[in-house]
Amino acid sequence: MAEPTDTDRRLLDAAYEEAQAGLAEGGLPIGSVLATSGGEIVARGRNRRVQDGDPTAHAEVSCVRAAGRRRDWSSLTLVSTLSPCVMCTGTSLLFNVRRVVIGESTTFAGPEHLFRAAGVEVIPVNDPRCVEMMRAFIAGQPDLWHEDIGR
Amino acid sequence: MAEPTDTDRRLLDAAYEEAQAGLAEGGLPIGSVLATSGGEIVARGRNRRVQDGDPTAHAEVSCVRAAGRRRDWSSLTLVSTLSPCVMCTGTSLLFNVRRVVIGESTTFAGPEHLFRAAGVEVIPVNDPRCVEMMRAFIAGQPDLWHEDIGR
Repeated sequence: MAEPTDTDRRLLDAAYEEAQAGLAEGGLPIGSVLATSGGEIVARGRNRRVQDGDPTAHAEVSCVRAAGRRRDWSSLTLVSTLSPCVMCTGTSLLFNVRRVVIGESTTFAGPEHLFRAAGVEVIPVNDPRCVEMMRAFIAGQPDLWHEDIGR
Repeated sequence: MAEPTDTDRRLLDAAYEEAQAGLAEGGLPIGSVLATSGGEIVARGRNRRVQDGDPTAHAEVSCVRAAGRRRDWSSLTLVSTLSPCVMCTGTSLLFNVRRVVIGESTTFAGPEHLFRAAGVEVIPVNDPRCVEMMRAFIAGQPDLWHEDIGR
């Protein structure tokens, strides 16, 4: 199992800030960043379902959208506070992102086996802040959470 | 293998119109609609990568985005002129769409096995118009096509 680097943890801090900004806006607290192998953040995103009324605006999709048209996806690391769902996993696989840092997979676990089957490096952080943030949100707004994951 | 109904073919006509509208805008000619089981179109989408500079704006994602926040996904049929890529497949699976009509899988075949593994009904139409539309586009703009599918 790959261990997060100090840079990965710093990038997760940035994703956590995105999640908190989303929460402050009345949205779901899930955040994401894309970064170069040197740790430079090239795009940020947060879940914008509530803010934009957009069901596809999960954090990772918002982040890839913000990254725009580019051809260097395979050199980037995707960082998310929460285990990517099947939509976000598919988005990352389409663009051939090769490295994914996951804040937590305790409150929700996406199909991480699809990453591994494609040879993508998955780095779990098991960050207690991320777990607690989602636990509190799901307990407080279960309907919104279920809507977000199509249940 | 499920056969398309007359309604499915009519819905594919609407998706084809979306694709043609995208082509006329200078974009990729891929279109999609979401419809009720009675054949009423609830949302339309077309690939908007070029138009919006948005790499996530495949036809199906644009269509789901246009459908907005709703809870009736499992009763809807997703129709696309082209076999959905892994991002669009994942998007459809997230929201538990149970029926997918595919114009063609000749020029590009997405991971349709993921639909079947999830018990989603996949209806191939093998529409020569759709094949010819994509063949001509890929021959004319291979770089744009490869960018769109992350190659």
